[in-house]
Amino acid sequence: MTSKVPLVEDELISRVEAVRQSMADHEIDTVLLSVGHDLPYLTGYYAMPLERLTMLVLPRNGQASLVVPALEAPRVAPMPRIFDVVPWGETTEPLDLVADMCRHLSRIAVGDQTWGRFVIGLVQRLPSVEWRRAVDVIGPLRMRKTEHEIASLAAAAKAVDDIAIALQSGEIPLVGRTEAEVSADLSARILAAGHQKVNFAIVAAGENAASPHHHPGERVIRSDEVVLCDFGGTMNGYCSDITRCVVTGTIAADLAAAYEVLMNAQEIGVQAGHIGESCESVDAVTRQVISDAGYGEFFIHRTGHGIGMEEHEDPYIVDGDERVLEAGFAYSVEPGIYVPGKWGIRLEDIVVATDDGPRRLNNAPRALFSVLQ
Amino acid sequence: MTSKVPLVEDELISRVEAVRQSMADHEIDTVLLSVGHDLPYLTGYYAMPLERLTMLVLPRNGQASLVVPALEAPRVAPMPRIFDVVPWGETTEPLDLVADMCRHLSRIAVGDQTWGRFVIGLVQRLPSVEWRRAVDVIGPLRMRKTEHEIASLAAAAKAVDDIAIALQSGEIPLVGRTEAEVSADLSARILAAGHQKVNFAIVAAGENAASPHHHPGERVIRSDEVVLCDFGGTMNGYCSDITRCVVTGTIAADLAAAYEVLMNAQEIGVQAGHIGESCESVDAVTRQVISDAGYGEFFIHRTGHGIGMEEHEDPYIVDGDERVLEAGFAYSVEPGIYVPGKWGIRLEDIVVATDDGPRRLNNAPRALFSVLQ
Repeated sequence: MTSKVPLVEDELISRVEAVRQSMADHEIDTVLLSVGHDLPYLTGYYAMPLERLTMLVLPRNGQASLVVPALEAPRVAPMPRIFDVVPWGETTEPLDLVADMCRHLSRIAVGDQTWGRFVIGLVQRLPSVEWRRAVDVIGPLRMRKTEHEIASLAAAAKAVDDIAIALQSGEIPLVGRTEAEVSADLSARILAAGHQKVNFAIVAAGENAASPHHHPGERVIRSDEVVLCDFGGTMNGYCSDITRCVVTGTIAADLAAAYEVLMNAQEIGVQAGHIGESCESVDAVTRQVISDAGYGEFFIHRTGHGIGMEEHEDPYIVDGDERVLEAGFAYSVEPGIYVPGKWGIRLEDIVVATDDGPRRLNNAPRALFSVLQ
Repeated sequence: MTSKVPLVEDELISRVEAVRQSMADHEIDTVLLSVGHDLPYLTGYYAMPLERLTMLVLPRNGQASLVVPALEAPRVAPMPRIFDVVPWGETTEPLDLVADMCRHLSRIAVGDQTWGRFVIGLVQRLPSVEWRRAVDVIGPLRMRKTEHEIASLAAAAKAVDDIAIALQSGEIPLVGRTEAEVSADLSARILAAGHQKVNFAIVAAGENAASPHHHPGERVIRSDEVVLCDFGGTMNGYCSDITRCVVTGTIAADLAAAYEVLMNAQEIGVQAGHIGESCESVDAVTRQVISDAGYGEFFIHRTGHGIGMEEHEDPYIVDGDERVLEAGFAYSVEPGIYVPGKWGIRLEDIVVATDDGPRRLNNAPRALFSVLQ
């Protein structure tokens, strides 16, 4: 007997089989995947985010077809056990090809990030179809990360941990630079650390930190204020995402008090991540700590989001997400406290639910560092 | 009397008025805009490409509403003369808000890049609506670039011209580096030249150049082969896009002969761009030069695409696009010749149709340079 390392193609094939089982459970006839991450999850291929249609037509039974612009067909690694390549030329209407493959079907699920132009074009061509979201079929599979996927997430997390430590040690200049300059610095470090792509590098100083998705701008960072940095990228197909705050000098008493509460809430939230707990219960226990301390009105977003091939994906750590944690679920725990016009703070780590309890992938220190410069 | 520089908001308002006129012409009741470029074209605001819905609900009459995640509301510059801000909290379903605003409407147009999850959600909630594409309403306006927009395109074009000249002068090392390394070098130069974003930096060596949308990889560039570089970014909201080829040493006779044909075809194509000519006729005359020289089967894509806020936008220089050039239309002219397994070449400039005839925005030399290193 020989032992054999499974081919990547074998793993993709087993994913396709699992999707087909899920399609049967959800009574979906065909799944249509374009830009977004479901397509590479099943085929290894990323569609170009342009106006020429790339679409995998995956029926519940029978061979799948990858409809792809002829001039991009050479980019596709053939996977004849999964799909046939169907190249289309520049004067063909590819939606007609897809619609022809979908005649007489009653229920079709479409990938979440498929461009509206294509969805509208299909709705127009197939008026009697009942339309669904492919995430209902594929999301549950993507939530359960394999060992290999967790290792990829851990490697990406380690890379941004090192950047966070550089920030906390004062190695990254802050005072006198604009938020945009520090954001560009973080972006360069994200790439230098081995990510292929920067997904975001939020830098928000002082009162700007009270806007959770602040766009870093020309605001110059001053002494004695909080600087919130939330950054991440994609490394070998998997995402990192971390938030740390530092203070450029003296930490004001009100800020220090709130940060103590925040750290405690985040710790409680992380430790709540046991298999069998619901996503909304992790949100609830985290939120409770902040509410009990009197900051409830200033925690204006969900506690976290799933992470994997995508920076935000199922499940969501939010009231109303009743899904129950399973081994391999990866998600952020990132409570925040935002006082409009004054300051904002957030603390974020990526956590994986395991049989041995929650495992943090980020290990940069979590205290509020004063960075004297 | 005082003369006044028009406010940016005034320009946005006049665009909104033009869109409403176009909605009336197309009998569209409401336009829904999310990620993509129609939203910033009308409001200056770019939606975050994430799972939380941002959507402008623009009715034909009456005030528009910008439905936006509460935690992103601080990013929005208020434009009370155009829209009300409608922030939604983390436990609200924003599609319900949008659907409520669209009850009793019969025809709704959706932005081209709106995520499928939102389009499907709306189709499910509003089953009796006739769905259209917003590009039919807004695209005709976006095609006619103003002087200011043309100046922005010209500035971006000048920036990539300088990079092309660096490439042609041998300043950018090629031989011994991988395509991916040269692509990263071009990307860094695109940012250093003042773009905020790299859109693509295709580098394809030798036989890889026969794949028009080749993904730069670990292939090491050798001596005496063609290197095709197609790169561009976004500078202050407007895109650049240029293609130049160089040869790392001796130019083979077959390549030189084909390149002569290509240069001639591109020149003919550019010069054909007079107001009143159809897009498909520009494609036809360009293609004719290549076909007449016997390379017709190797020119496997359209001649070009519109360009503006988006790297590819209406109109398309392709058989079947019967739209007629008007003053201010900006588009690429980029014929190519691709011999599978051997080499590929492409030559691309951005052109604007003006009352005085076609105006090239790119002015880097168009000859096939030998770059001895």
